[in-house]
Amino acid sequence: MSNVMSLARRLKAAQPQIAHAPTELKNRLLLRIADCLCASMEEILEANQTDISSAAQNGIPNVMLDRLSLSEERIHNMADGVRKVARLADPVGEVLSGYTLVNGLKIRKERVPLGIVGMIYESRPNVTVDAAVLCLKASNAVLLRGGKEAIYTNITLTRIMQHALEEEGMNPDILLLVEDTSRQSATEMMKLNGYLDVLIPRGGQGLIRSVVENATVPVIETGAGNCHIYIDAEADLEMGVNIVYNAKTSRPSVCNACESLLVHKDVAEQFLPLVKERLDTKNVIILGCEETRRILGESVAPATESDYAAEFLGYVISVKVVNDLDEAIRHINQYSTHHSEAIVTNNLTNSQKFTEQVDSAAVYVNASTRFTDGDEFGFGAEIGISTQKLHARGPMGLEALTSTKYVILGNGQIR
Amino acid sequence: MSNVMSLARRLKAAQPQIAHAPTELKNRLLLRIADCLCASMEEILEANQTDISSAAQNGIPNVMLDRLSLSEERIHNMADGVRKVARLADPVGEVLSGYTLVNGLKIRKERVPLGIVGMIYESRPNVTVDAAVLCLKASNAVLLRGGKEAIYTNITLTRIMQHALEEEGMNPDILLLVEDTSRQSATEMMKLNGYLDVLIPRGGQGLIRSVVENATVPVIETGAGNCHIYIDAEADLEMGVNIVYNAKTSRPSVCNACESLLVHKDVAEQFLPLVKERLDTKNVIILGCEETRRILGESVAPATESDYAAEFLGYVISVKVVNDLDEAIRHINQYSTHHSEAIVTNNLTNSQKFTEQVDSAAVYVNASTRFTDGDEFGFGAEIGISTQKLHARGPMGLEALTSTKYVILGNGQIR
Repeated sequence: MSNVMSLARRLKAAQPQIAHAPTELKNRLLLRIADCLCASMEEILEANQTDISSAAQNGIPNVMLDRLSLSEERIHNMADGVRKVARLADPVGEVLSGYTLVNGLKIRKERVPLGIVGMIYESRPNVTVDAAVLCLKASNAVLLRGGKEAIYTNITLTRIMQHALEEEGMNPDILLLVEDTSRQSATEMMKLNGYLDVLIPRGGQGLIRSVVENATVPVIETGAGNCHIYIDAEADLEMGVNIVYNAKTSRPSVCNACESLLVHKDVAEQFLPLVKERLDTKNVIILGCEETRRILGESVAPATESDYAAEFLGYVISVKVVNDLDEAIRHINQYSTHHSEAIVTNNLTNSQKFTEQVDSAAVYVNASTRFTDGDEFGFGAEIGISTQKLHARGPMGLEALTSTKYVILGNGQIR
Repeated sequence: MSNVMSLARRLKAAQPQIAHAPTELKNRLLLRIADCLCASMEEILEANQTDISSAAQNGIPNVMLDRLSLSEERIHNMADGVRKVARLADPVGEVLSGYTLVNGLKIRKERVPLGIVGMIYESRPNVTVDAAVLCLKASNAVLLRGGKEAIYTNITLTRIMQHALEEEGMNPDILLLVEDTSRQSATEMMKLNGYLDVLIPRGGQGLIRSVVENATVPVIETGAGNCHIYIDAEADLEMGVNIVYNAKTSRPSVCNACESLLVHKDVAEQFLPLVKERLDTKNVIILGCEETRRILGESVAPATESDYAAEFLGYVISVKVVNDLDEAIRHINQYSTHHSEAIVTNNLTNSQKFTEQVDSAAVYVNASTRFTDGDEFGFGAEIGISTQKLHARGPMGLEALTSTKYVILGNGQIR
């Protein structure tokens, strides 16, 4: 039996304990995890240093080193995040609907845990803790598999959380880490039908595509964000500049950053120089359509089809002048990853048409796409942002980690 | 370009029309479909006769011939089913939640169509109409692929529905049938990422397993039902006999029929002869554990491990005497397909423990498992019964054919 399968069996055996754990116990467990993380500061930093050293030796880029690195402050923030999840309302047990049939059967639909959640992710070790505590709060067992760069940190963080489980009298097998970071172990995880109720990949497009293509267990596709902002003919142009500047430059490496700007032809002459001036302050590279280049000059490089489809994740933006709202909507629905899009307009009809016809998880009127985030939406925490339409769409909080069950009470009814 | 891909592109181009169709138009369309079905009675029966003749020539079993066969009455029932769906409330546009953030952003979560729904099914041609109208009512475009036995019937039914679409001024490409019934066309459908938002298989376990294993688009697993009834020590035994008899024999070929009976040891001596006497009236074959055979005699064949896991879909039942409720729950969670299970008891604590700890889509107290059905649950119609935990669980009505979207209204907010 492979190592991954043996972990899966241990999870399956332990899972009923967390599935039926009272809210009070789960909250106490989370607070203990937070305390244990703070108390184990040195041990975590030491393991993290081992990961960083070997990553540096392997010549990993600085941006990845930063993702991998923990500090006292980052660990305290991690623990604060855990305490915040402890304070969230427990989704399990909520009665979503209930009614009585004419034959007297009383039906109620209740929120229940998903069961066992699998997470495959890359170099950020904080995902180990964030994902684990969200899953536990929703009464799920969890199988984690992080990237090889963070393996010592992940092993240490998992051991600390398992220790907290034991201290609360629970089976530590509720929370297991795949320590084998080979491609083989990931592939095995994707085929754990009968064990994993869902597999959530978090990371770059390569990882997510691999999981979507190879998994036979149910998957929630997350992450990729080719987000658009459309400046309507009736837009407040100053607001438009502020929103584009914020959505493009406040944190260009994240999935809710703006990657593409569409401008109505009637305001393009006026708007494009204004937004370029602002984007120039951050040296944003503009890739434009012919009309954009006519207005802004030949210093703007031409945008290709693949530029319109690209998630740049950096200081680059594609720009296209469109004839009308319909063309903007068609362009977005064709090139978008269906994550977040915004219209800037003062026209009510146009705003309604945009929100109705743009087929994305979050559609904004006169606001930055950067708000698509579980914390910003008030969920308290986030396990990822779903870009598929099944089960959950947009930022996923605790509810996305639950399923439902019908409970039917009778007194001898037969059909 | 393959035929399936060309159908997918036509669907994708036509889909926005149905996505934004007003409820009134959709209802009118459905009523017209119902009328067209009744008006095309002869044409449908003729196509069906062609299918039946070639199926009979190919020596297809009678039970499958019956599933395949239409009659005037069945077509009228089909049309009545369509009219019933027309009368159901439109799920699209429902606001599920809404609130205002401290920064003034107004967020609302709305129900929207899934987009394009794929259905792969077997020999029942009524699925062609049932699935199509449910998808259309929830504003989805739909790609159908039925079994080869029903191909002429399915082509005719689809053409009639497309004609109704045209008569309502809509693009008939909203509803397309894969006429190529080769394995290749099914496999291509399973890989239509970027086109299909969900693929729902309906049929035998072989079909469902093939879709789960091969699809890269999101799938909702449906159907298999190894349903259990547990007779508690404190059960009303007469009620227990009635429920077991009903759940086993009222329609043994369906997924909500009872396949396995568990009996508490304290009432086994009394209950087993009673239930056997009743099941004998329908010649139900009992496969029993050792204790069952001690009580009922050696005429009862021994049950194997695989019998406990089997969905017999006929007049066969496995029977096991258990020591207590915990053993019953463990047995069910191990062998069940997580469809429907029932406890017969007058003990409140036991009933609560059973409904909490049995991990199935529908859990009954003192009622037959046969009620797990969209129509019985009051959904008006059903696209299938989900046995997975993601997106939908149990009978799936119109809501299961929808997703959600966040609409966020601001006045210039940036992050």
